Amino acid sequence: MKHPFLTLATIVITFSASAQDSTMFRRIADEALLHGQCYDNLRVLCKTVGNRISGSANAAKAVTWGEKTMKTTGADKVSLMPADVPYWKRGKESLMLKYGKGQYKKVTALSLGNSQGTNGKVVEAPVIMVHDFDEFNKLSKDQVKGKIVFFNYRFRQDFVFTFKAYGDAVKYRWASPSAAATKGAVGVIIRSMSTGVDDFPHTGSMHYADTDKVHLPEMSLGNNTADSLEKYCTLGTVSAKMQSECKMMPDLVHSYNVIGEIKGSEYPDRIITVGGHLDSWDVGEGANDDGAGCVQSMEVIRIFKALGIKPKCTVRAVLFMNEENGGKGGQAYADSAKARGEHHVIAIETDAGGFSPRGIGFEMSEALKDEIRKYKDLFLPYGVYDFSMEEGGSDIGPLKDKLKVPLAGLIPDSQRYFDIHHTNNDVFENVNHRELKLGAATLAQLIYLIDQHGLLQ
Amino acid sequence: MKHPFLTLATIVITFSASAQDSTMFRRIADEALLHGQCYDNLRVLCKTVGNRISGSANAAKAVTWGEKTMKTTGADKVSLMPADVPYWKRGKESLMLKYGKGQYKKVTALSLGNSQGTNGKVVEAPVIMVHDFDEFNKLSKDQVKGKIVFFNYRFRQDFVFTFKAYGDAVKYRWASPSAAATKGAVGVIIRSMSTGVDDFPHTGSMHYADTDKVHLPEMSLGNNTADSLEKYCTLGTVSAKMQSECKMMPDLVHSYNVIGEIKGSEYPDRIITVGGHLDSWDVGEGANDDGAGCVQSMEVIRIFKALGIKPKCTVRAVLFMNEENGGKGGQAYADSAKARGEHHVIAIETDAGGFSPRGIGFEMSEALKDEIRKYKDLFLPYGVYDFSMEEGGSDIGPLKDKLKVPLAGLIPDSQRYFDIHHTNNDVFENVNHRELKLGAATLAQLIYLIDQHGLLQ
Repeated sequence: MKHPFLTLATIVITFSASAQDSTMFRRIADEALLHGQCYDNLRVLCKTVGNRISGSANAAKAVTWGEKTMKTTGADKVSLMPADVPYWKRGKESLMLKYGKGQYKKVTALSLGNSQGTNGKVVEAPVIMVHDFDEFNKLSKDQVKGKIVFFNYRFRQDFVFTFKAYGDAVKYRWASPSAAATKGAVGVIIRSMSTGVDDFPHTGSMHYADTDKVHLPEMSLGNNTADSLEKYCTLGTVSAKMQSECKMMPDLVHSYNVIGEIKGSEYPDRIITVGGHLDSWDVGEGANDDGAGCVQSMEVIRIFKALGIKPKCTVRAVLFMNEENGGKGGQAYADSAKARGEHHVIAIETDAGGFSPRGIGFEMSEALKDEIRKYKDLFLPYGVYDFSMEEGGSDIGPLKDKLKVPLAGLIPDSQRYFDIHHTNNDVFENVNHRELKLGAATLAQLIYLIDQHGLLQ
Repeated sequence: MKHPFLTLATIVITFSASAQDSTMFRRIADEALLHGQCYDNLRVLCKTVGNRISGSANAAKAVTWGEKTMKTTGADKVSLMPADVPYWKRGKESLMLKYGKGQYKKVTALSLGNSQGTNGKVVEAPVIMVHDFDEFNKLSKDQVKGKIVFFNYRFRQDFVFTFKAYGDAVKYRWASPSAAATKGAVGVIIRSMSTGVDDFPHTGSMHYADTDKVHLPEMSLGNNTADSLEKYCTLGTVSAKMQSECKMMPDLVHSYNVIGEIKGSEYPDRIITVGGHLDSWDVGEGANDDGAGCVQSMEVIRIFKALGIKPKCTVRAVLFMNEENGGKGGQAYADSAKARGEHHVIAIETDAGGFSPRGIGFEMSEALKDEIRKYKDLFLPYGVYDFSMEEGGSDIGPLKDKLKVPLAGLIPDSQRYFDIHHTNNDVFENVNHRELKLGAATLAQLIYLIDQHGLLQ
């Protein structure tokens, strides 16, 4: 029985949310569900642009699409903000495995983003399996030298909130090559960061430590192939042939964040930002990651305009460039805000898939969180009930770091995300129209609330 | 500020849920997520049996599958309970539409379940569109006579909980032919009960009133075709040719409910039932409706056995036959319970799709609801937060009617259900493994709780 008085106080305050708020929440949801454009916009992005890794021709097409689509929302002003981004190119790649005395067979695999390939040459070596870094650390250099290390760390299916499992496992994608290099390995294979009961390998960001003397190639396997490899590593010897042309291009490429805004009617200098990221990995269609967040952010502007909501503060929708492998768009946005001395009330990110919204997470002081939480009952009819998590976003992180801006993140149902995240299966067909629209409604409702009641100012 | 003392009391009681409960909830979820069999079982049902309308050969195959699969759960006893069921056969069917002076073109359509077709003959007639019964009631007999009536009632996309929209719209599927017959129509076309932005027509149950002098054929259209038909009905004249062999077979067919149980260790005569329905419509694979509920119910038994939970009461998983178009299995179960003088503590149905669980609804007295709700915080880590809805289930309804048994129903996320419900798109691939397993965990947790704490006795 903790804090009964706080609970009572919360009830009192909750009831201060006016009938007008409740009505506007309903109108926002109706507008999203009955006249929503975000699903149609996502179809166009996925089917006419497709995947769009930073620096690529497709990323440039996506900027053009984003600028054009943002204008259709009725935004008062649409602009492009320059950001120079890295360009990692996959090129051809293949992974072949030989179990025992069998023949080499090609398996489905993906090089990890930012990784250096084999320069097109075949790297053939025995495979040694470890389940985690602890096990790897116990191996001697002699045991590892000249081998391809298979980091067979299982994504935790027992975590109900799958992003927790991602946080737990992602170090094996990020840091395995540097670890393996210290003991003379010649390559790394990982089990994907995946809940999938399938054979889709997941790409995603990796990095080399500054101290790395060699840059090892790193490839991921879908769970089914990883299960086979695990079995044969347990039973006997396995060899692999890795071949990959992937590389980081030497020069940065000019690119842009796409920004649309509604000018604040009372406090134009106070800014509420909502955004997703426009770049994706170079597989699938970047539908859930993060086409969904882009079209939802633009939908907020469209809903406000369609309903004639004139926000007191300036509301900005931002399609950030280069979230996946550099974060240059988010940095550029924060740098610009700092240089211009902008006052940012809050920045909200939607980058967790276009699934049914369940909550809103915060990275801000407890006092500020409570300012918003006192209105949480307003969200309940829309299935949004969880205001407990710590959540911001990669693109808006620099705003907090540089300007102490309070952050929030949309929290959709997480069950399907890591089946498809960073795979060829992250396509438009794996986004549901109603789930996507409800997420956009939640964002618009949150922004309406913060703006209307002068929260966090 | 209503009921502050009630709120305080709730807090106090909530904290009486023991650490042991919390630990067991976690173990149940882990068992479902890490070792769950329900998804694999569903794959077998969908891919080796397929759809299984009551009375069909496939329904008989499904009973065999159900009995065999129930035995793999470790149930103490597996049995079949006879239930004679109707058998409605679709046969060949086609719908052709002619817009203005154009040519007839075949469109995708489905006859509604239980409907009488055209006896294989072509029924050709002008189409008259109405949007709802009010509009239909204003038409004279002369306006309707000899025509095919298009009931173009839109499924409400603005309702967040889609079952509410279903409840609102379903009368147009159920009762349009009887209404149309009173004014001399020769056939009925309806817009499907569907949230889908696609062209999948949805079948489902209809009925003829006892007073009907003729039994009109009824067919449904997917939303896209319904949109076209609406447009052309507004612009000018439309004609249709309906042809269908569908009919209700004259004789009932012997069939069965499949029942598995764990005998209660203290109160074997007190029964907790959890069930879904084994029959489906004769399209798709009956994956979400209601293969999901069947495999989840069996999973409850498997989880209890795997964790060594010895329930005090008898726990029964029931795969009901004939939910879709007769409810004979549910009636047989209640009749049997009454005849044997069984004491049923609660009956729980899972028949709303294999999606992420969000809540549990109840049909029981407020006092009994509160007995369960005081433990609701235990469910929160599993994403189950909504205990506010009135919900039981078709199969367990007769238990309430005949024996006043308290009822509950699992409430999964409802956004996708009416995209696929009763369509050729209700296939295994549209069920997510983690969402399905979490639903099974919720059911097992609820039953554990009721059994452990002697609730509702």
